[in-house]
Amino acid sequence: MTSPPTHPLDAALALQALGEGRFAGRTLPEWGNMVGPFGGITAAHLLQAALQHPERRGEPLALTVNFAGAVGDGGFEIEARIMRTTRTTQHWSLVQRQGDVVCSTGSAVFALRRPTWSAAELTMPVVPAAGQVAPARGEPPVQWPRRYEFRFVEGGWPDFRHAREEADSRTLLWVRDEPPRPLDAAALAAIADVFYPRVFRRRGRFTPSGTITLTTYFHADAAALAAQGERPVLAVAQGRRFALGFFDQSAEIWSDDGLLLASSHQVVYFKE
Amino acid sequence: MTSPPTHPLDAALALQALGEGRFAGRTLPEWGNMVGPFGGITAAHLLQAALQHPERRGEPLALTVNFAGAVGDGGFEIEARIMRTTRTTQHWSLVQRQGDVVCSTGSAVFALRRPTWSAAELTMPVVPAAGQVAPARGEPPVQWPRRYEFRFVEGGWPDFRHAREEADSRTLLWVRDEPPRPLDAAALAAIADVFYPRVFRRRGRFTPSGTITLTTYFHADAAALAAQGERPVLAVAQGRRFALGFFDQSAEIWSDDGLLLASSHQVVYFKE
Repeated sequence: MTSPPTHPLDAALALQALGEGRFAGRTLPEWGNMVGPFGGITAAHLLQAALQHPERRGEPLALTVNFAGAVGDGGFEIEARIMRTTRTTQHWSLVQRQGDVVCSTGSAVFALRRPTWSAAELTMPVVPAAGQVAPARGEPPVQWPRRYEFRFVEGGWPDFRHAREEADSRTLLWVRDEPPRPLDAAALAAIADVFYPRVFRRRGRFTPSGTITLTTYFHADAAALAAQGERPVLAVAQGRRFALGFFDQSAEIWSDDGLLLASSHQVVYFKE
Repeated sequence: MTSPPTHPLDAALALQALGEGRFAGRTLPEWGNMVGPFGGITAAHLLQAALQHPERRGEPLALTVNFAGAVGDGGFEIEARIMRTTRTTQHWSLVQRQGDVVCSTGSAVFALRRPTWSAAELTMPVVPAAGQVAPARGEPPVQWPRRYEFRFVEGGWPDFRHAREEADSRTLLWVRDEPPRPLDAAALAAIADVFYPRVFRRRGRFTPSGTITLTTYFHADAAALAAQGERPVLAVAQGRRFALGFFDQSAEIWSDDGLLLASSHQVVYFKE
């Protein structure tokens, strides 16, 4: 009898506690991007360090990750430090290092949620159900997209051989972990970064680019994430302004019954 | 002969360098909110510490501030630590303390901007010019709003005696420092937080609330900010989802000739 293989996301998130808020991890080739790992998996790693910390209180409310430099293949260490715990929030400082080199920094806020007045001001885009949209095919040149199933409603992978400049940079897709895995906060932190650079879409051509900073807000509690299960979530992303070597992008991640699970914002470097 | 009085923003931003990335500051009653100072001035303080640091390179690209607890009246210290400097970016870790108590934490990314392809995907809302909109009157119950001139186009200060639930939480206004002051990154960091809590607007009633985390992206270089001078900027803010004691808000700050100067995002606690 053999145990089922570990899911690639869980394999990536298996950090080893070293004590005093330090955690050891390792890059996996399955999550590789052009240079270093997929930014979303780094975001999930940083969040996971706080999630695994024995003194953690509450659930993720906000996560900011600053990508200071590429993570090299191999081991890394994350330091997760509690800066302050209040009645409803816990504030974390996060640093990922390889040896003495800082690869990424960040912060997280955890919070105790409680029932209050509620309102959904933004409503989910009207789209065909996931089952009515064909999964994207093809062999992406990097590994991490194989860890997801992408069902593009709008703005799919650009084919640079036939692409042209577009009037907007919006992408809208159903996405889930591949193989399927129940949704949780760490998985959502990674999914918030599944959008290829908006500059590819606007310009219809490849330009070297990389996320500099990423902030994700979690709007749903663990029960709502668990209720989503393994079904695809709807993900939307669009840029606001491209100038002087950088652009921003805002994204929303929706449950398939129309609940805003996360909003996420990032600034991306591009070369020319 | 007397020198002109120091502008209240410059008075607030005059940090005293203590060496090794430590800076001493002091709360000013002029910037007071209900409990502690206006969050925008705290954001400006943290950014200012990096701006004043002798090893700072480049201009602000992104700033995240996590409000861990109220800042008490009096002195505080900010620690601004360079985590990594690359060819185009510099990554900062920021902590504000009073004694041993952490009041706020954060991070900043500074960057070297350079000419590239550019595109404005989001366009400025069509509104009357600032001069055609009357400044808001009244005596706000706290001090910090007196440091700004507000010309509300939509969603002005709620009058809780006559307010009612609204279908959306959008506020749109022309705003500038009061008295007028040339725009720069620190002023913009503060202006990104001039919106009263969106939950007031949606519900038409007061509920205790406070910003937990704030992230601002700077899209313009120092020359573009200087070109804006003392003229009002257009500021827009709206929430996405209110639930379980928290809501998010996204904002855009525009120059009066339609350039997106900053986008800013926050999560706000509310009580009931």
